[in-house]
Amino acid sequence: MTEKKNIAIIGAGLVGSLLSLYLAKRGYKIDLYERRPDMRVSTLDGGRSINLALSDRGWRALRGIGIEEDVRKVAIPMYGRMMHSENGQLTYQPYGKEGQAIYSVSRAGLNMALMNLSEPNPDINYHFNMQVQDVNLRTNEVYLHNHHSDTDEVIQPELIFGADGAFSMVRNALQKTERFNYQQSYLEYGYKELTIPAAEDGGWLLEKNALHIWPRGNYMMIALPNIDGSFTCTLFFPYEGERSFAAIKNDTDLLNFFLEVFPDAVALMPDLAQEYFCNPTGSLVTIKCFPWSYEDKVLLIGDACHAVVPFYGQGMNAGFEDITVLDKMLDSFDGNWEKLFKEFERKRKPDADAIADLAVMNFIEMRDAVADARFLLRKKVESKISEQYPDKWLPLYGMVTFSDLPYSYALETGRQQDKIMGKIMKHIDTLEDYNKSEVQQLLEEQLVQKEKLKAYQQQEV
Amino acid sequence: MTEKKNIAIIGAGLVGSLLSLYLAKRGYKIDLYERRPDMRVSTLDGGRSINLALSDRGWRALRGIGIEEDVRKVAIPMYGRMMHSENGQLTYQPYGKEGQAIYSVSRAGLNMALMNLSEPNPDINYHFNMQVQDVNLRTNEVYLHNHHSDTDEVIQPELIFGADGAFSMVRNALQKTERFNYQQSYLEYGYKELTIPAAEDGGWLLEKNALHIWPRGNYMMIALPNIDGSFTCTLFFPYEGERSFAAIKNDTDLLNFFLEVFPDAVALMPDLAQEYFCNPTGSLVTIKCFPWSYEDKVLLIGDACHAVVPFYGQGMNAGFEDITVLDKMLDSFDGNWEKLFKEFERKRKPDADAIADLAVMNFIEMRDAVADARFLLRKKVESKISEQYPDKWLPLYGMVTFSDLPYSYALETGRQQDKIMGKIMKHIDTLEDYNKSEVQQLLEEQLVQKEKLKAYQQQEV
Repeated sequence: MTEKKNIAIIGAGLVGSLLSLYLAKRGYKIDLYERRPDMRVSTLDGGRSINLALSDRGWRALRGIGIEEDVRKVAIPMYGRMMHSENGQLTYQPYGKEGQAIYSVSRAGLNMALMNLSEPNPDINYHFNMQVQDVNLRTNEVYLHNHHSDTDEVIQPELIFGADGAFSMVRNALQKTERFNYQQSYLEYGYKELTIPAAEDGGWLLEKNALHIWPRGNYMMIALPNIDGSFTCTLFFPYEGERSFAAIKNDTDLLNFFLEVFPDAVALMPDLAQEYFCNPTGSLVTIKCFPWSYEDKVLLIGDACHAVVPFYGQGMNAGFEDITVLDKMLDSFDGNWEKLFKEFERKRKPDADAIADLAVMNFIEMRDAVADARFLLRKKVESKISEQYPDKWLPLYGMVTFSDLPYSYALETGRQQDKIMGKIMKHIDTLEDYNKSEVQQLLEEQLVQKEKLKAYQQQEV
Repeated sequence: MTEKKNIAIIGAGLVGSLLSLYLAKRGYKIDLYERRPDMRVSTLDGGRSINLALSDRGWRALRGIGIEEDVRKVAIPMYGRMMHSENGQLTYQPYGKEGQAIYSVSRAGLNMALMNLSEPNPDINYHFNMQVQDVNLRTNEVYLHNHHSDTDEVIQPELIFGADGAFSMVRNALQKTERFNYQQSYLEYGYKELTIPAAEDGGWLLEKNALHIWPRGNYMMIALPNIDGSFTCTLFFPYEGERSFAAIKNDTDLLNFFLEVFPDAVALMPDLAQEYFCNPTGSLVTIKCFPWSYEDKVLLIGDACHAVVPFYGQGMNAGFEDITVLDKMLDSFDGNWEKLFKEFERKRKPDADAIADLAVMNFIEMRDAVADARFLLRKKVESKISEQYPDKWLPLYGMVTFSDLPYSYALETGRQQDKIMGKIMKHIDTLEDYNKSEVQQLLEEQLVQKEKLKAYQQQEV
C-alpha cells in the first residue's frame, strides 16, 4: 500500500459519490468537493425528478458496495419499449429475454442514497458549494471558490480524481498540457423535459413497466416512469428547421404540434405549455479525450473523460463500470499510481469510445427505425437466432445492457451480426420464413464464419 | 456594399497577410494584429529557414493578387519524390505529368513578401507585438497585450477575422459559446528540423528539383531545397518506443542511429548533434471545429479553423484557397455578413475535413509504402491509366495538388479509384501486364461503373 492516503474527488455526483465508497473501503481518506449545495438540504430545479435507466453494469457496481437491494426498492423495471404511433396505436418490443429489464431510477434519489451511505464514514467528507476554479498540475494545488462564504480556498491533496462531469474543470487543466487529444461534438438536437403526472389514485397513466417512445422520424419523445406515479417525458427535437425548437414560438404552435404528433400524450400533460417554455433546453454532447490522467496525480473518471448522449441509457452505467474496472485493478495495486492510471486509461478508452458511438447510433434507431414494421420483424428474427444459438449470438442491445462484455467487443460483434442480418433478411418476408431451410442453411454458414473470425481475432490479440 | 469597413485581422502570418490584400482591394480598411515582432526587423529562431510546398491552390491565390511571378522567382520546383534507401540507393517517382511540380518556398520569405506588398497600402496597417488575450463576442472588443510597451489595449473593430493559426485565441473565444464542436488530435509523432548545408560552391548536395524522402517504416526523414543551396530536413519520429525521441539520449545514440538508417544523409550534416539537441521538437496536430463564425462579427480562416498535419503539403495551400473561395463569394456579396460567413463555412467545412484526413493518410504512404516495390508498380500502373483515360482518371495526388477540384471530391474519388486499383493489381505482376486484354477489359468495365456512380452522385446533389 502506498503512503498516498489523502484523496480529493472533484464532483459529488453519482460517480464521485460511489467512488468515495470504493476508495474508503481500501483505507484512503476521501474529501469530495461539490460545486452545488447539498441536494439533501436544498432541492434544485424546483424538485424536478430526472430519471435514469440503470442496467447490469450499474447494478454490478452498486452490488460491489452492498447497496444493490436498497436501490432496487425504488427502481422501476422496464421490460421493453412501448412505441406510440401518431394515432395512438401501441406496439411492444421486449428488451431482452424473459425477466430482463432496465430500471428507471431517480438521479437525485440515487445520488442522495449514495451520499447518505458514505457520509457516516469518518474517512469520507463532503464539501458542498465548492467550485473548482483551476488545478495546478505541477503542485497538486486545487483552487476553489466557496460559494457559501464567497471566499477562495486552496487545497493540496495527494491525489485528485476528476469526477466533475462533461464540463469538467479538472479536464480543463489537463487540456492545457502538451499533446492532449480532445473532442466535443454536439448533436443538432436539444432536449426538453416534460411531465405526465400521476393519476388521481397515485397510479401510472401509461404502462408502468416500459420505456415509452413516440418515434417520429427525425425527432422523438420518450417517457420513463417515476415511483410517485408520474412519468418524466423527454422531447428530443432539432434546434432549427420546419419542426424544431426554433419553429415553436407560442402556446398555439406548441399545442397544435403536440395534438398532431403526440395526441395520446398531450391529453395527459396538463402543464405542457408552462413546462415547455419554462424548462431549459438541454444540449446533447459527446466528449472524448486522451489521456485521462496526469502523472501519478490526477485521474479523470466518468463523464469527465467520456460524456455520451443519452440514447443507450449507458452514461451512468459506463461511469459506474469505470469504478468496477478501477477497483479490480486496485486488487493487484503495487503502489505505483502512474502505472495504475496508465493501465486504466489504456484498458478503458476503447470501451468509452465504443459506447459513445453506440449512443449516437441508437438515436437513429430510436427516433426512426423502431417505427418501421420491417425493423420490428428484423428484431424478432434476431431474437429467434439468439434463442436458437444462445452461445453464438447475443443481440447488440443485450450485450450492451445485460452483460459485462466490453463495449468495444459489443460494437464490433454487433457490426458483424448486422451484416449477417442483412443477408438473412433478404430471404425473409414473414417471421415464418425463418424456418425455411435456405434461411437455416445460410444462417449456419454465416455462424461458422463468425466463429472463425472470432477465433482469428482472439489469436491476433 | 455594407458600411462595415473597419476590419481587424488577428494574425499576420501567411493567410492573414494575403487576406489583407484581398480585402483592401475591395475597399475595406484593415488592421492586422500580430503576436510576434516584425520578422523583417528581428529574425526569429536564429534565422532558421523553414520551407513549405506551394502547389496549384496556393499559386491561384497568389495570382489573384498579382504576385505569382514575384514568388516564382524564389520558388524551387520539385518534380517528384526521391526515395533514399538504407544503403543509399535512389528511386525517383514523378508527382504528376511532365512539367507538373510542387514548389519549395521559404515560409518567412513568402510572409515578408506579402507584408512588403501590403504595407504601402494606406488601408492596411500592421501592429506587431500585439497578443490577443481574449475576445468579447457580444461587444466585438478584442483585448490585446502590447509586448513592446508591456501594456494592455482594447480595440473594437466592426469585423474580426481570426487568422491566428492552430492555437487561435479567436477560436478560443468561440469555444466558450454554446454547442461549439471542437476536436484536437495529436499524432504520436514529433518532428525535428535539421540542415544539409550548401556545397562550398553554393550548389545543392542532393538533387535540387525533388522532395527527398528517407522512408523507414514507422518513421521517416524528408528534405526540401532552399534557394541558398541548403536543404531543410525534417525528421518525423515517434515520441516513445524503441526508435524514438525518447530513446536517443546523447550524441552517440544519435550518431549510431543516423549512421545505421540515414547513412547518405548523415555524411552531409555537419551540425547534426547540435541541431538535434538544440532545436525544439514540434508536435503534429489536426484541429477541426464548427461553426467557424460568430454572428456577423467573427470569421475564422486557415489553420485557426482547420489545422492539418504537414504530410500532403497542403496546410498553407488550403488556407490560401479559403481566401480564393471567400473572395469569390464577395463578388455577389449583398452586405449580409452573417449570411456570407454561414455560406462560407458550409461550403468549406467538408473540404477542410477531407484535407485533414488525407494528410494523416499520406503520412502512412510516405513513411512506409513509398519504399515498397509493389506500391511503386501500382503508382506506375495508375499513371498509365491516367494517360490512357485522361478525362476519366486523375490520380488522387494530382487532384489534391495540381487541380482546384474540391478536396472532398478528391477524397471520395480517390477512394473509388483505390478500390478499382485493388482489383486491377490482382492481375498485374509487371508493368507489361497492364496491356493484357483481361486487364484492359476489367479496367473498361470498372470505368463504366465509376462514371455511372459519378452521374448518380451528381444527380443526388
